[in-house]
Amino acid sequence: MEKIKVNKVDVIRHSLSHVLAMAVIDMFPEAKLGIGPATEDGFYYDFDLPRTLIPEDLPILEAKMREIIKSGVGFKKYEEDAKKAYKKEEKRGANYKTELIGDLIKEGTKKVTYYQSGDFLDLCAGPHVKNTKELSGVGFKLSKIAGAYWRGSEKNKMLQRIYGIAFLTPKELRGYEKMLEEAEKRDHRKIGQELDLFTFSDLVGPGLPLFTPRGTILIDELQKKIEGICKKYGYEKVITPHIAKEILFEKSGHKQKFGKELFRVISETKEDYALKPVQCPHQTQIYASRVRSYRDLPIRYMESNKQYRNEQSGEISGLSRVIAITVEDGHVFCRMEQVKKEVKMLVKIVKDFYKSLGLWDDFWISLSTHDPEQFENYIGTKEDWKKAETILKEVSNEMNLGAKVCKGEAALYGPKLDFMFKDAMGREIQIPTIQLDFATPQRFELTYINEKGEKENPVMVHRAILGSYERFLVMLIEHYAGEFPVWLAPVQASVITVGASAKKFAKEVYNTLKENNIRAELRDENETVGKKIREAELGKVPYMLVVGDKEVKAKAVAVRKLHDKKIETVKINKFVDLITKEVSNEN
Amino acid sequence: MEKIKVNKVDVIRHSLSHVLAMAVIDMFPEAKLGIGPATEDGFYYDFDLPRTLIPEDLPILEAKMREIIKSGVGFKKYEEDAKKAYKKEEKRGANYKTELIGDLIKEGTKKVTYYQSGDFLDLCAGPHVKNTKELSGVGFKLSKIAGAYWRGSEKNKMLQRIYGIAFLTPKELRGYEKMLEEAEKRDHRKIGQELDLFTFSDLVGPGLPLFTPRGTILIDELQKKIEGICKKYGYEKVITPHIAKEILFEKSGHKQKFGKELFRVISETKEDYALKPVQCPHQTQIYASRVRSYRDLPIRYMESNKQYRNEQSGEISGLSRVIAITVEDGHVFCRMEQVKKEVKMLVKIVKDFYKSLGLWDDFWISLSTHDPEQFENYIGTKEDWKKAETILKEVSNEMNLGAKVCKGEAALYGPKLDFMFKDAMGREIQIPTIQLDFATPQRFELTYINEKGEKENPVMVHRAILGSYERFLVMLIEHYAGEFPVWLAPVQASVITVGASAKKFAKEVYNTLKENNIRAELRDENETVGKKIREAELGKVPYMLVVGDKEVKAKAVAVRKLHDKKIETVKINKFVDLITKEVSNEN
Repeated sequence: MEKIKVNKVDVIRHSLSHVLAMAVIDMFPEAKLGIGPATEDGFYYDFDLPRTLIPEDLPILEAKMREIIKSGVGFKKYEEDAKKAYKKEEKRGANYKTELIGDLIKEGTKKVTYYQSGDFLDLCAGPHVKNTKELSGVGFKLSKIAGAYWRGSEKNKMLQRIYGIAFLTPKELRGYEKMLEEAEKRDHRKIGQELDLFTFSDLVGPGLPLFTPRGTILIDELQKKIEGICKKYGYEKVITPHIAKEILFEKSGHKQKFGKELFRVISETKEDYALKPVQCPHQTQIYASRVRSYRDLPIRYMESNKQYRNEQSGEISGLSRVIAITVEDGHVFCRMEQVKKEVKMLVKIVKDFYKSLGLWDDFWISLSTHDPEQFENYIGTKEDWKKAETILKEVSNEMNLGAKVCKGEAALYGPKLDFMFKDAMGREIQIPTIQLDFATPQRFELTYINEKGEKENPVMVHRAILGSYERFLVMLIEHYAGEFPVWLAPVQASVITVGASAKKFAKEVYNTLKENNIRAELRDENETVGKKIREAELGKVPYMLVVGDKEVKAKAVAVRKLHDKKIETVKINKFVDLITKEVSNEN
Repeated sequence: MEKIKVNKVDVIRHSLSHVLAMAVIDMFPEAKLGIGPATEDGFYYDFDLPRTLIPEDLPILEAKMREIIKSGVGFKKYEEDAKKAYKKEEKRGANYKTELIGDLIKEGTKKVTYYQSGDFLDLCAGPHVKNTKELSGVGFKLSKIAGAYWRGSEKNKMLQRIYGIAFLTPKELRGYEKMLEEAEKRDHRKIGQELDLFTFSDLVGPGLPLFTPRGTILIDELQKKIEGICKKYGYEKVITPHIAKEILFEKSGHKQKFGKELFRVISETKEDYALKPVQCPHQTQIYASRVRSYRDLPIRYMESNKQYRNEQSGEISGLSRVIAITVEDGHVFCRMEQVKKEVKMLVKIVKDFYKSLGLWDDFWISLSTHDPEQFENYIGTKEDWKKAETILKEVSNEMNLGAKVCKGEAALYGPKLDFMFKDAMGREIQIPTIQLDFATPQRFELTYINEKGEKENPVMVHRAILGSYERFLVMLIEHYAGEFPVWLAPVQASVITVGASAKKFAKEVYNTLKENNIRAELRDENETVGKKIREAELGKVPYMLVVGDKEVKAKAVAVRKLHDKKIETVKINKFVDLITKEVSNEN
């Protein structure tokens, strides 16, 4: 059902791009057309125009679009001989369209499709609405102008792109615009700067975040939480270096897979090294360091460590895409008959972790299987694949996960379960993954001695629960809009003085908090209480403890929660108990 | 005083190397001599001999040496014209000596020194004893034979080197030999393998340790301890990536300093990166990311993170010298007038940390100052140096540290305090260091706004408390001979069953321990109790909890400490209390 709905809005978005082109031609008859597809939230169209557009052009064009829609122009599809079409477009000077048809002819296309709406003719595969009247109820808006090279190449001419956003109803559009506004407010780069969570340096390089004391607290707390949960399920922490001989990644296949993304490490010694782009190959070498018996299995390793991938600078933005990626990665080495139990355990770990963050309510799981028609694209035997996929299906059934089978989405080396959650803005986030792998243990000749004294290869289960700390922080910062739950907040309590006479007691309060492992700050400057409260609020500190003469006398603090004007005066020890309990409940 | 003592033993060692040469010539008159210096624990001499030596030759040579000593041969020093000496040596076919004299002549030497003992003549700067009789009371022993390239170059001929160990008295020699035996037993490579603490992989590369679950516990516990102590003193943890543009290290001076030891990181992008060989430059960039006011200082960062230096393979051995070095590093940024307080605080941190490991009893501190006669070798003004050295002297006086002034031992950028401890075998270990640095803040244009609204450079204090985790583990493993205190032990308690009927209760005990964060293992295999206890002892597990029918009935465990045959039966909860208290007392 969802698929059809998506299609309907796509048709509307694509049709609106044609209507936009009509409006532009009405305004600039000499305009030359590039292409105009639907996008994830609307549409765009690229134009070669006699003058540079200004923001004021957008409402004019939008008004023209609404007129066209109202006038009820039809969309008529017809086919034309490709070569004839080429000549026609050449004749009317539509050089971009000529180029497109020329390429289609080279690829062997005989016939091309056109859509005609009144005088407007556009080379287009469709589909479209039948008549612009169908667009009259939808919500759309021209959103921005940008430059875009023809066909994305810097060698070509820069065209002008007009973007629109469009949804099935004006209400949906408004909802989306509100979400955009909210997302902008919650942008992790903005909040990261405001709360001093991380920074970048031109001397260090793009995509290489430096975590400040406050950001480091976030990472440390997340690491403690995920490691605490995994430890309960028998995971053991390991630490591996960031470089290895290139041969390690040749053997694992990652050198070939990552290509230019792999950083090479050059030294004067014979051997060449590489920065690890993943953790798996290093962890196999710990498994391989001892003779393992079937009695030792399952062996479960976890590691929170950095890996490095050479992303293009253009793709780098805040913490969303980084070169230094801190991953929470882990691997189970077990027998085939242990896989099911291990996968179930991992589903429980995912649940424990995401539930504690309030993200378990709205999720779905994909069970990515191989494409039987393209079996040559995978590693392993058909029998193993069948066994493994059956195990994942059984896990889904027995745990009522309702995993959606996504054929052809499996990893090279085995099927997997992927978990999709929704953040506070309704955006889908995919992080945890559980992947079965028969190939790697064979590549690295990992074995265990079975009951008969024979060597066998274990199965490897790759698992990420938190995934990359950087991407996870992006999600959390935007999900919470920087207002972290108490257990995670870099500063948990701000002690604020009223008047100089409270300074001494405020310092005592501050020290008591510190001694009780509460992350506190002391605001005892000679400034107004109002200003100090505002600063603590800007810092998204969950608790403000105001201390004036009254509190000094009562040996108490006036507690004020963020966004809560209610003030409650409690003894300091009671506050310590309350916040400590809150932290442990949240954990 | 110590210096003279060292010299006396050096003279004896060097004289013994001549006596060894006399003995070798007596045995092989055609022997050609290389060089024969004193070493840290004795002496050696390199020979070009007509046949390969065998271990059985050593007692024969030793006996000959004792005869020579007894016979009272004198050491007579005389000078000779270098060119004449060259011809003489050439004539007697002493090609190694000829080469040495040739080089001296090239360097402009006119006269060379010889020592004559009976017929034995050796080119040598001395000093020596007057007569071999002076050697009669000393303790010495020929210890081993090894191959050694002439002048250390693979291009030259391989000579045969005979090593001896020598001390002022036979008693000292015996003490040293005992220490060597003990050191061999405690060798961290041996214990690391036995206790499964770390491993190396040919595919990953030499000097790149992989920390197994047990080794990772050691690192994590040490990190928790040092970070806990530093946090109390206001240190804040940061995390920085392992690579940076090379320009960062050019600016800091580390690119020039580390030269070939710096790993370069190559990518397809324009910029070249390097693996960080130290943490300082990255941490300066966190300081530089915000405008700092004098009110914000001191700012104290700490970080436990890996850094990479391209050590030569030959130098790599176990964890003693590694390429991937995990350092516990930190920096204070403060005003000159805050330096003293910060240094005092750091001395307290060093004391807190080493005291908790039982290493604070026997230590000395060096105060490394600049050499005023070579001031051009340092960065900074004379005034700053004077101020900084005065601060360190005042700290030493006010805290009764008795720091020994070591002139000319300062770092390039400022004076420092270094702490020397002794391990269980009496070996000196130098780890903590506190270094003042005026240069780096200037190089990176780090500033803060002072009371007048003007920019000033802060002083940077570099500090390492634990130093490198790898070297620290070497020290701890050998200090404790793998028998770690309970708080650090990778496995704290081993639950051992007697008979199958105790299995169920043993599992309950094991689970209770786990729930109480006690690192436990369960030995419930169908093997003899004796075997299981032996295995736990080999694993150096501090507590063995034996569970048989009697204990099942009493809901108790029979507790047995490592190396302690006394068995005490206690309820499981009481044991949990005891061990928890022990861990928290040790921390």
